[in-house]
Amino acid sequence: MSELTLRAAKTIVDTALATARGHALKPLAVVVYDARGSLKCVQAEDGTSLRRVEIASGKANGALALGLGSRAIAARAEAQPQFVAAVSHLVGPAALVPVAGGVLIRDGDRLVGAVGVSGDTSDNDEICAMAGIQAAGFTAETGA
Amino acid sequence: MSELTLRAAKTIVDTALATARGHALKPLAVVVYDARGSLKCVQAEDGTSLRRVEIASGKANGALALGLGSRAIAARAEAQPQFVAAVSHLVGPAALVPVAGGVLIRDGDRLVGAVGVSGDTSDNDEICAMAGIQAAGFTAETGA
Amino acid sequence: MSELTLRAAKTIVDTALATARGHALKPLAVVVYDARGSLKCVQAEDGTSLRRVEIASGKANGALALGLGSRAIAARAEAQPQFVAAVSHLVGPAALVPVAGGVLIRDGDRLVGAVGVSGDTSDNDEICAMAGIQAAGFTAETGA
Amino acid sequence: MSELTLRAAKTIVDTALATARGHALKPLAVVVYDARGSLKCVQAEDGTSLRRVEIASGKANGALALGLGSRAIAARAEAQPQFVAAVSHLVGPAALVPVAGGVLIRDGDRLVGAVGVSGDTSDNDEICAMAGIQAAGFTAETGA
Repeated sequence: MSELTLRAAKTIVDTALATARGHALKPLAVVVYDARGSLKCVQAEDGTSLRRVEIASGKANGALALGLGSRAIAARAEAQPQFVAAVSHLVGPAALVPVAGGVLIRDGDRLVGAVGVSGDTSDNDEICAMAGIQAAGFTAETGA
Repeated sequence: MSELTLRAAKTIVDTALATARGHALKPLAVVVYDARGSLKCVQAEDGTSLRRVEIASGKANGALALGLGSRAIAARAEAQPQFVAAVSHLVGPAALVPVAGGVLIRDGDRLVGAVGVSGDTSDNDEICAMAGIQAAGFTAETGA
Repeated sequence: MSELTLRAAKTIVDTALATARGHALKPLAVVVYDARGSLKCVQAEDGTSLRRVEIASGKANGALALGLGSRAIAARAEAQPQFVAAVSHLVGPAALVPVAGGVLIRDGDRLVGAVGVSGDTSDNDEICAMAGIQAAGFTAETGA
Repeated sequence: MSELTLRAAKTIVDTALATARGHALKPLAVVVYDARGSLKCVQAEDGTSLRRVEIASGKANGALALGLGSRAIAARAEAQPQFVAAVSHLVGPAALVPVAGGVLIRDGDRLVGAVGVSGDTSDNDEICAMAGIQAAGFTAETGA
């Protein structure tokens, strides 16, 4: 049922990491979920810390769970911290990380998945996610 | 022990969703638990995000667990965040979501179940829950 | 992204329950998931035991997780009990119940969701699930 | 501490999937962990069932946790099912799946990571994992 192919997911990850290297960012973990919340593609660069993939996953999984880019979830977490803390236990084992870098992948209006990036500042993480999504021909929804 | 029939639970869900459509709200998930904390009826409209049912369930389950509408739990979460965070681990896998939209169903004084709604603003979610409860001939207790 | 509409899911549940009443079965819980593993529609008849919905959910969720009707998972559980026990912890909080009654919903080759039924014998549960799926114009895959 | 580069991990995954396509196997999920138990690379082919990545992860994570290929863990699970069941709760959220297809990656004597494959028979899954490990210049330890 997933409409996000592995081929597209690989383009997203490869482009996100090429963008990171072009800007000399810290080592990144990049994860792509399809619309079902199933992992399609993950890559962690050499030098990433022990649970960096989990943080990237929490950004993307949280975005899918709520249908909001993680930048919007971060804003909600400031306004209603108890809501976001509570929801983070309900969105599956990948949980929810309420900072920028979890970006919805849309094909027109259609939600086809989400990207999560972690390793540098959350603003830079988000830039890499957006570059990947655009390179694959999709529209990025950050929640800004 | 449950006194909330499936027939009544369906009336609650159908009316909540008709109310949402009448106000052009975002797609909603609506869940109804009986007084034991067993699901009686769930419907998720087309277009709901991946974990919207879980959020609706957390509102209703938390309300039943504490015997308080989730609007009251939200107020308590502001006053005593540690209490609510701790309790959310103790109320079963559906947990507790401390925002409005989890409404107790009373038949006179008797507690017969709870409704949880998620998808639009929590104020609008609560309006739909109340409409459903009233249509089924019960009294809604929001915690306001 | 889900292709299983709420309208179709309601037809499945209503028909499954009508089938149960036509055969004077015990009270049933019927759950329908879409292809994302999100609940679309649940109904529990009056008189169902406290965790009957959870059992129905485990049948359907397990079927989706492995892409196999739960009758096939039951056969695998006899051949490789440790495998099935281990996997039941990995398929999300709804877990996996390896007996008949969890049936995949296919639209041609396309997987669009799963139905879980619990309350009577697992053979009868499965008959009700199949009746619902066929009434909605889909193909049932039981794993037989 | 990890000595398994992303470049090597990608070779493992790409070769495992090329092997699967060469044998016309069912759609596979392939995961590679480094020696710390951090995900380095994941790819899920189009058509994999909802929780296939989790099963592949459980094979590899369990292998790393016990320092045994998952084929050896499967044998242990037959001899001592309670031991393996208990351990599966202690090895982190990726748990442990005691069937073939979780293969340790050795560089000489040194353990550098593990591969998990799921989607076809566990014997075929293991063949793909071994092909990937060998293509990257490492030694595969299946537990046979």
